[in-house]
Amino acid sequence: MRYSDLGNGLKDSGLGELLALAGKPEMYNFSSGFPAEELFPLKELEQVNRAILQKEGKQAVQYGSSAGYLPLREQIAARMNKIFHADCSAEQIFITSGSQQGLSLLGQLFLDKDDVVLVESPTYLGAINAFQLCGPKFVEVPTDEQGIIPEALEEILRTTERVKMMYVIPEFQNPTGVTWTMERRRAVMEIVNRYDFPVLEDNPYGELRYDGETMPALKSMDTKGNVIFLGSFSKILMPGLRVGWIVAEPEILEKLNLLKQDVDLQCSSFAQRQVSYFMDMFDLDAHVIVLKERYRKRRTLLYDSIQKYFPAGVTATYPEGGLFLWVTLPEGMDAKALAPKATARKVAYGPGAPFYPNGGHGNHLRLNFSTMQEDRIVEGIQILGDLLLEELEG
Amino acid sequence: MRYSDLGNGLKDSGLGELLALAGKPEMYNFSSGFPAEELFPLKELEQVNRAILQKEGKQAVQYGSSAGYLPLREQIAARMNKIFHADCSAEQIFITSGSQQGLSLLGQLFLDKDDVVLVESPTYLGAINAFQLCGPKFVEVPTDEQGIIPEALEEILRTTERVKMMYVIPEFQNPTGVTWTMERRRAVMEIVNRYDFPVLEDNPYGELRYDGETMPALKSMDTKGNVIFLGSFSKILMPGLRVGWIVAEPEILEKLNLLKQDVDLQCSSFAQRQVSYFMDMFDLDAHVIVLKERYRKRRTLLYDSIQKYFPAGVTATYPEGGLFLWVTLPEGMDAKALAPKATARKVAYGPGAPFYPNGGHGNHLRLNFSTMQEDRIVEGIQILGDLLLEELEG
Repeated sequence: MRYSDLGNGLKDSGLGELLALAGKPEMYNFSSGFPAEELFPLKELEQVNRAILQKEGKQAVQYGSSAGYLPLREQIAARMNKIFHADCSAEQIFITSGSQQGLSLLGQLFLDKDDVVLVESPTYLGAINAFQLCGPKFVEVPTDEQGIIPEALEEILRTTERVKMMYVIPEFQNPTGVTWTMERRRAVMEIVNRYDFPVLEDNPYGELRYDGETMPALKSMDTKGNVIFLGSFSKILMPGLRVGWIVAEPEILEKLNLLKQDVDLQCSSFAQRQVSYFMDMFDLDAHVIVLKERYRKRRTLLYDSIQKYFPAGVTATYPEGGLFLWVTLPEGMDAKALAPKATARKVAYGPGAPFYPNGGHGNHLRLNFSTMQEDRIVEGIQILGDLLLEELEG
Repeated sequence: MRYSDLGNGLKDSGLGELLALAGKPEMYNFSSGFPAEELFPLKELEQVNRAILQKEGKQAVQYGSSAGYLPLREQIAARMNKIFHADCSAEQIFITSGSQQGLSLLGQLFLDKDDVVLVESPTYLGAINAFQLCGPKFVEVPTDEQGIIPEALEEILRTTERVKMMYVIPEFQNPTGVTWTMERRRAVMEIVNRYDFPVLEDNPYGELRYDGETMPALKSMDTKGNVIFLGSFSKILMPGLRVGWIVAEPEILEKLNLLKQDVDLQCSSFAQRQVSYFMDMFDLDAHVIVLKERYRKRRTLLYDSIQKYFPAGVTATYPEGGLFLWVTLPEGMDAKALAPKATARKVAYGPGAPFYPNGGHGNHLRLNFSTMQEDRIVEGIQILGDLLLEELEG
């Protein structure tokens, strides 16, 4: 078959295989980002499904709006105000099939081949892959434990042509778990408003904070309509419904609406109502509190087990929320090369290199703590710690 | 905002506005392609929803496979064999968010800017829009009441460079309602196999045949893996679930799988099970028979009303199935210019010009017969007939 350049560029990274392996029940799975399925509100969902058919019936399975089910857009606007202090209305909310579709639509909307997209270094692999379809150049902005470094960002903007947009995850970043400080948020937004370019603020984990106070979203500090916020119900409710959202200016929503009609018409009418009715009939905030209690425990247990079982010279971030922490091995060690040895001992993790779009940085790995039961977290880290020790002493 | 070329190219065709207007309850709506919602199997769906949660629970709302829910892929493979005589297995079935997503993914996979895509003249507007995102050239292959004209196709292939794929709807075409004869199918497949290029066979209405015998799909005559078949549950079950499928060689499925991960990860886990459980628990064939009885009646009523109320010089196709028929006005009349006068009398139809990717052909219009109750079909055609008569005499 003669594919397009895009088609020819689609290569299997092997990550799919790793994820499939990691998903086997006997594995200690630190590799995926699955939410804890034992906490899915299934009884509530059964009531929700009945109510949808009783109240709306045929409308719930007929064609609907490309921008999304209006009551859901209204509920999300209210939630954006309440949780993220971002003042917006339903006219600025666009429903997507999870955040992943938001990333892909926004990439298509802004990026031509060889345009520059700025990303944190490292950044979310799914965003790299979504943008990659447009053939851009990735410029990695240096980050530290407080977020993106504003001076480095400004230097890049001053010296780089064709910067079309920036993609960031200020809350509990994937993969590092880092959260931007207030100071950094202010400094970055000052630069963004001066240089005037779109910033994609990806925030799938923002509500899952285990310590400290909620920080204002970049969107809440946006006075010029430059920030485009991406949210998702995957981590706070259920990922398999595939419901996420974009907050953006109406001008951008018009474009998204036309693009969505061309790529898949609309999201599932029924799935959108499942989310909307759940929020109407039950207390999503109370559900998030249950998730936070469980994940807080797992986060702390993972971090403490690392302190206890990992050898000296291996460091880990302490995430205040989200689903991941980030491990740095001594320079020269290769987390990808080590992965088969770990899987032979039934431990799966995410090698760090793919999170750097321009390569390098082989000595990192990402660990997830939302998926596994507590005892298995401790056992898995003990096994991985033994392996790391052997490698270092080897 | 500085958009990409693709973003700048997204222009509102005004069709969205027309569809919104057509959807108002007081309108005689011949314009959209909505299935009859009074026939949605909602009682069955309630049982389906309960069974999904009872049997699978959390798996039904967790992340799942990008290629789709395996039991559904198996059911579709069996149905492809049974209904369309196309011998295939689950490894060749890929689940999409409706056919529209299939069109968009396949466009991305095959079309670079300025590549040539062959289409019937006229062809489905949603396909034009999906492919348009890749910036191809559309070459329209002449068609008549028997389908694509093989001699014209061969002449184009002989004289045109960069032909990357062909897109066709051999069954009850949208917009014309035309079905390819057996002879044409054989002749076209002979040419396709000789020139060796991918053919997208879009078949959303294939099961909705009201007269005559089912014809073998091009896919069933495909000996070289050139035909990629697109199917959908939108018209035979419920469109709002957004479940369609692609049948293609495993090599192409691998590419689709990688692309789907980048664009939206997967289709709704729950919606896929809604379709799968429905087919397991109920008789989809029996449901299709109910639809066919209703739609046959409406098709015949629409056609007969046209014969009765439309002035001489206006002709209509007689579709053996599907949802649409195609009206040709006398040369020089402009269906788009006439549309506001029709909507002023509460009649909405689809102007034909947008179905020709290279423009022209203003004297056609598309009429749908699946959406409205019988009495309103007759009333609406009488009103439209009066308007056409006034215009012709005016």
